[in-house]
Amino acid sequence: MTTSMPAFQDFYAEELAQCYGCGRLNQDGLHIRSRWEGDETICEFQPRSYHTAIPGFVYGGLIASLIDCHSTGTAAGAALRHRGGQPGEAPMPRFVTGSLHVEFLRPTPLGPRLEIRGKVKEIKGRKVVVTSTLSADGVVCARGEVVAVEIPEGFGAPAG
Amino acid sequence: MTTSMPAFQDFYAEELAQCYGCGRLNQDGLHIRSRWEGDETICEFQPRSYHTAIPGFVYGGLIASLIDCHSTGTAAGAALRHRGGQPGEAPMPRFVTGSLHVEFLRPTPLGPRLEIRGKVKEIKGRKVVVTSTLSADGVVCARGEVVAVEIPEGFGAPAG
Repeated sequence: MTTSMPAFQDFYAEELAQCYGCGRLNQDGLHIRSRWEGDETICEFQPRSYHTAIPGFVYGGLIASLIDCHSTGTAAGAALRHRGGQPGEAPMPRFVTGSLHVEFLRPTPLGPRLEIRGKVKEIKGRKVVVTSTLSADGVVCARGEVVAVEIPEGFGAPAG
Repeated sequence: MTTSMPAFQDFYAEELAQCYGCGRLNQDGLHIRSRWEGDETICEFQPRSYHTAIPGFVYGGLIASLIDCHSTGTAAGAALRHRGGQPGEAPMPRFVTGSLHVEFLRPTPLGPRLEIRGKVKEIKGRKVVVTSTLSADGVVCARGEVVAVEIPEGFGAPAG
């Protein structure tokens, strides 16, 4: 199972791992997980039957969520790699979304496991721009572009 | 309670009312509801405690979902009004999302009821462009722009 491989989100600091989309500590969340595959990043996700839009197709808000969290995860992985670090060996940076753009190219069939692939377009200071595709059965159904912004170190940490 | 007022989504055809975001027939869904308020449209939504991003703030994917479904609902209401119809008196058109853009201006506090306001920027053939703001406690936290596309009549209806 490729999905048991370590993901960027496994290394988020505990106080920053509650995200509904990708937080490993959010019991009600989607548990989106992303990892390197060469110079790209990959995320696999199995929508639930209730994640429907028009019957038979995947809800666009879920697609936006997958692109969003996969992109902030990619930004974290890319920033760490840019600094010469590896997940698990150095503190994982944490990014939030500055802007999110999704083009829905065709309806995404509800049933197959979805694959989201990310590429780093630009790293500039605290910003990382990530482009991505979302595919079902090998067909690209949506494209995304996210501007991710690193949060300051210590943000979200318990006070005192 | 203003939220008991009829919403565009109340009038979607039964076979098109399963959307996870705004379908009244999706038992697991968010039940996003939108209505006219003058020349704007409005949606109010109370996030659940688990709809978190960084602790204390609302998950961006939920914000994207709210903007998405409120905009397709607004497009439906606007198209109907453009044709001289009223919700409940004529079949409600149904729009899907062609593209979705969200600017996250500041973290959205998790706790207050959110208010999404939509404006119709353009109606052109089967496309309606909707801009929107998402506010918490009167402060705009995100802006959206959605290109909504009307689905053909009969799409999603039972075959035969």
